[in-house]
Amino acid sequence: MDDIQDFVGKLVVKNDTKIILLVMDGLGGAPNLGGMTELEAANTLNLDMLAKASDLGLSVPVLPGITPGSGPGHLGIFGYDPIKHQIGRGILEALGIGIAVSEKDVVARGNFATFDGETVLDRRAGRPATEENVKACQLINSKIKEIEGVKVQVFPGVEHRFVLKLTGDGLADNLTDADPQKDGEKMLYTTSVNEESRKTAEIVNKFIKQVSTILKNNGKITGCLLRGFSKHPVMPKFPQIYKMRSAAIATYPMYRGLAKLVGMDVLEVPHVDDEAGSLQSEVKVLKDNYDKYDFFYFHVKHTDSYGEDSNFLAKVDVIEIVDRAIPQIMSLKPDVLAVTGDHSTPSLVGGHSWHPVPLLIHSKYSRYGLAEKFSEKTCATGSIGTIEAKNIMTLLMANAMRLEKYGA
Amino acid sequence: MDDIQDFVGKLVVKNDTKIILLVMDGLGGAPNLGGMTELEAANTLNLDMLAKASDLGLSVPVLPGITPGSGPGHLGIFGYDPIKHQIGRGILEALGIGIAVSEKDVVARGNFATFDGETVLDRRAGRPATEENVKACQLINSKIKEIEGVKVQVFPGVEHRFVLKLTGDGLADNLTDADPQKDGEKMLYTTSVNEESRKTAEIVNKFIKQVSTILKNNGKITGCLLRGFSKHPVMPKFPQIYKMRSAAIATYPMYRGLAKLVGMDVLEVPHVDDEAGSLQSEVKVLKDNYDKYDFFYFHVKHTDSYGEDSNFLAKVDVIEIVDRAIPQIMSLKPDVLAVTGDHSTPSLVGGHSWHPVPLLIHSKYSRYGLAEKFSEKTCATGSIGTIEAKNIMTLLMANAMRLEKYGA
Repeated sequence: MDDIQDFVGKLVVKNDTKIILLVMDGLGGAPNLGGMTELEAANTLNLDMLAKASDLGLSVPVLPGITPGSGPGHLGIFGYDPIKHQIGRGILEALGIGIAVSEKDVVARGNFATFDGETVLDRRAGRPATEENVKACQLINSKIKEIEGVKVQVFPGVEHRFVLKLTGDGLADNLTDADPQKDGEKMLYTTSVNEESRKTAEIVNKFIKQVSTILKNNGKITGCLLRGFSKHPVMPKFPQIYKMRSAAIATYPMYRGLAKLVGMDVLEVPHVDDEAGSLQSEVKVLKDNYDKYDFFYFHVKHTDSYGEDSNFLAKVDVIEIVDRAIPQIMSLKPDVLAVTGDHSTPSLVGGHSWHPVPLLIHSKYSRYGLAEKFSEKTCATGSIGTIEAKNIMTLLMANAMRLEKYGA
Repeated sequence: MDDIQDFVGKLVVKNDTKIILLVMDGLGGAPNLGGMTELEAANTLNLDMLAKASDLGLSVPVLPGITPGSGPGHLGIFGYDPIKHQIGRGILEALGIGIAVSEKDVVARGNFATFDGETVLDRRAGRPATEENVKACQLINSKIKEIEGVKVQVFPGVEHRFVLKLTGDGLADNLTDADPQKDGEKMLYTTSVNEESRKTAEIVNKFIKQVSTILKNNGKITGCLLRGFSKHPVMPKFPQIYKMRSAAIATYPMYRGLAKLVGMDVLEVPHVDDEAGSLQSEVKVLKDNYDKYDFFYFHVKHTDSYGEDSNFLAKVDVIEIVDRAIPQIMSLKPDVLAVTGDHSTPSLVGGHSWHPVPLLIHSKYSRYGLAEKFSEKTCATGSIGTIEAKNIMTLLMANAMRLEKYGA
């Protein structure tokens, strides 16, 4: 079979059932404080009660042992084969800082760097403060509006990072990185991998030269490096494949962007600073829009953030805050509620990891009865077994009675 | 890997071990009465004793979340990739009513329908009684013997359904459905998808016209719709792949036909009306033929039928009847006995479902010791794990010491 979605897509039927996919980013852990994972240490009465009436299993984001970034992690749980569908780093960087990318754009991830003539002295320009980054971007945007009829814009990121966006007809992204990847090396221009991208390469190289002129006397930021040139990926759209009105509820640009990329409606979530308030803001959006959609992707960010910070207790807190919202979500009576993560982020590791991710699927057809709790351990011996993340959507669709029988 | 059987086939060796594959159709359940599945509610002392000395696992018929029909369900447990090998609906309908299909035939699934001129008034002709269906088929068979040198036959099914069988040289099945799929629409003729099937399309369309003339004044049955044109699928034969003399013991035409399709010898089973008697009839055939074959596919139908009827207790009864026959089967001392289903049919769902199927494999090499019972729960935590159905045959062959080591 070429593609799981080609196969499943042919079996999809429409009905009026509703599915909520609750994603706690980086949910999975590894035994840490007291030999427990964050999910085991958390007081999760509601999730445990739900687990008693649900199918449990483990989800492997890509393949055993593969640690995914947010892009492949999310594509998997959205039902896409994360090996077949790859999202360029330029696009992910753009999504991460909330830049809209259309089919006419080519974007790249940029570094501000310190040069000595043609030699790269410091690929990160001494990790400048955000204000310096913003100033450099403003300077560039004021001096360069377009090159050869193509609109040029840069957007500041954190420290030395920025995004270059080119907008115009006939742009292509088959370009090599204009980045030697190592301090002390000679700077690099981009080269076009094929004829189609020749014009784009010329524009990019003119941009690099103009930037080094503009930033000549600009302290440590005296030029730029560019990599991960990418266009908006061509991929089948989620709402069309699964024939569901699909909405995303997420607060961070990266996840809002990923949902937009696959064609979901991205709902506005009013910003609230504290953790519990932010989750309640998302729950309110879910309630207010419940009648308008068939499928909701509901994203919680900070389980991942605190895992990355190796902050065991703070990750436990976030899980408990989500647990307390479960009755509110269940009060909507979704036909299918899934609780999982896009990958594991154990505080023990302090970053994304390869560990399979706890998966709970609740519907009236659940083969429940094996588990008393929602944890890595109960999921490892659950009724679903261990599956690849790209199969989760098929299970949700089945539980929502949205798939026809295959073959007679 | 292109095909599991290409790979496994190269490792097959012959010996004198015997394998029995006991298939309880639709065996798997979901928690229903008392929070139990049918298999959990059944009193299965013999299967439970066997489970203590066996490998257990769950089998995913096609892919997680996919509900298979009987065709893909059986191909999987016979070791075929059910996505690569698809069996046309015409063939399955023909097998279901016990019509022999050879490599020279094209068959299609037919509906008797009510027409007003060229408009389809009722695609099911008011769901006629079987006698009316039989009468219409007799009338057609008496008037149409052949068209353009190709032999034409129709066979009655239930209510409005029948099977058209064309026999001759140079027939092909790349034909569109001659069925608008909706009442009130204009009737459709078939069209050939490629040049190879042009002649077959002409014959089919002449048949449709002749039938509407023959049935002009025949009450509600005034014409026909045809779909799922299919030839005998080209597939490697089970006895050749696995180098085993292979026999099928099944009472229903569909399963006898599926076994024949993959090249098994289909043994005659004397008909007995009651459930226990019917099973004993099958057991007797097994005993009588035990010395003549290496592999037995032994099929029990009514676990599925009662699941489809949402009849929890009747499905429990059938499982108990099978349980009581286990000592008789074990008394033959098969080297490998597997007990499983082709898919789940929970009475909770009232139809086939996507739930993984309990799988028990007993041999003297079983890694036993995990389970006290044979149930969905013990299978979910069994020593086999959760596997795709197409891998079951490899495990049976391994336990029968019929596979060589792969690589040195």
